[in-house]
Amino acid sequence: MFDVTDKDKQQVAAWFQTLRDQICGAFETLEDEASGPLSDRPAGRFKRESWQRDNTDGGGDGGGGVMSIMTGGRVFEKVGVNISTVHGTFSEEFRGQIPGADEDPRFFATGISLVAHMQSPKVPAVHMNTRMITTTKRWFGGGADLNAPLPVAQDTADFHAAFKTCCDRFDPDYFPRFKQWCDDYFFIKHRGHARGEGGIFYDQLNSGNFEQDFAFTKAVCETFRDIYPELVRRHINDTWTDEDRETQLVYRGRYAEFNLLYDRGTTFGLKTGGNVDAILMSLPPEAKWP
Amino acid sequence: MFDVTDKDKQQVAAWFQTLRDQICGAFETLEDEASGPLSDRPAGRFKRESWQRDNTDGGGDGGGGVMSIMTGGRVFEKVGVNISTVHGTFSEEFRGQIPGADEDPRFFATGISLVAHMQSPKVPAVHMNTRMITTTKRWFGGGADLNAPLPVAQDTADFHAAFKTCCDRFDPDYFPRFKQWCDDYFFIKHRGHARGEGGIFYDQLNSGNFEQDFAFTKAVCETFRDIYPELVRRHINDTWTDEDRETQLVYRGRYAEFNLLYDRGTTFGLKTGGNVDAILMSLPPEAKWP
Repeated sequence: MFDVTDKDKQQVAAWFQTLRDQICGAFETLEDEASGPLSDRPAGRFKRESWQRDNTDGGGDGGGGVMSIMTGGRVFEKVGVNISTVHGTFSEEFRGQIPGADEDPRFFATGISLVAHMQSPKVPAVHMNTRMITTTKRWFGGGADLNAPLPVAQDTADFHAAFKTCCDRFDPDYFPRFKQWCDDYFFIKHRGHARGEGGIFYDQLNSGNFEQDFAFTKAVCETFRDIYPELVRRHINDTWTDEDRETQLVYRGRYAEFNLLYDRGTTFGLKTGGNVDAILMSLPPEAKWP
Repeated sequence: MFDVTDKDKQQVAAWFQTLRDQICGAFETLEDEASGPLSDRPAGRFKRESWQRDNTDGGGDGGGGVMSIMTGGRVFEKVGVNISTVHGTFSEEFRGQIPGADEDPRFFATGISLVAHMQSPKVPAVHMNTRMITTTKRWFGGGADLNAPLPVAQDTADFHAAFKTCCDRFDPDYFPRFKQWCDDYFFIKHRGHARGEGGIFYDQLNSGNFEQDFAFTKAVCETFRDIYPELVRRHINDTWTDEDRETQLVYRGRYAEFNLLYDRGTTFGLKTGGNVDAILMSLPPEAKWP
């Protein structure tokens, strides 16, 4: 189970790399296409930075990852796409919280995590993250949600419809369950409102059929890869006002509140000594609490 | 003990109001005095907004507070001074965490909380908060800490010296203990560095002499009221560069991280249904995670 070279683990980790390349390529294409407000600046390009992780059971290789970051583009103000493949041993504190870790605290995790904050308040921000985790159990989890400072009903509807089509190919129960899970999860409790327009969220997915579950996770990622650039294109050349920008900056403040107060990946990552830059890559390039 | 009209409670709550008036007056005077970079705009003025709190044991009066906010001034970009006097009953969840609340979950709390974010990156931001809490026990707590994006050694030294003088009037052990407590508390663990230049922090102060402990808390507040405007005046007319501003905005991002991830007042307040605006008044008007 903990042989990091086993075929399934290698296969999933390699696929996340391929996906990363496809998404980064698609986002750079959007930078090339932009001919609106900030098109006098050079088209943005991703820079990659790899990081290593010490093994949690003390010393030795614990895997690592690669952050792809693009900032100050024509379309993307800050977007990070992080892939990571890590392994180690859960601390006493976390063993009780992770399925299968009470019997044997070793784990292997591979995944992709993406957050895009856009220059234009008219273009929705977005988050996508999927992963496979192996302890004595193995499961997939992840999802994607749309975060529009100035929501457009048709965009929201099309985003949800794309994920419904994707989910329905696997199980008719998936979409209603995973949409609700997303709404419940990305809720800013102290503000009493959602973080954004929602999407889907799922965790501990193990139907008993590994190939099927991996195919579903691939389909979720590919749905994101196809629908999000389409939504960006709809508004890529729209102009915006100072008031729109202010709305966006305040909206991003709420987004930062959610991530720092409630997001399990963020708080878990910071408390378990994860890579700070990779974890906090999700925070907005600029935000306001006026 | 829970008679909110008792003399000690009334006396402390009334004193916090007086202090608030003195501090707001001193800050408005700084706005009048400024003749540097943003002095073409009108001198800033505080606006007050009161809020009520439902009693935590369901219905009825639970006290409330008054937020004094000044934004967009010449000197102060955003400063909030909140006074509150609240009473109620701790939920099951919190009884075990609060001294004296396991025997009887009723509480009374009165305090002042202040956070100032400055226009100029050359002027330190600051936080000050003191309070008296009564359960079956009664204690004072609070402190002040300096948060300079571009620290000046003499300012830091004078800030600490002022609190040392204040503390030493009461107990020679106070300053070393309360300075260390501040350093330990205002530490951004995941970043591995302090939130700012420190100051003092104390909690559960009950020497057995109420008048003495109240006098100490008053002295802490008065020390803040006197030293902070002095530090502001030293830099009030300094100019700054775009690079200085960028440094300030990134520094404020770290400040927001601390408050949302670690600050007990913030997380406790949000989880116990406190006034969201008053609690999050501490967040910076603008911040960056570039």
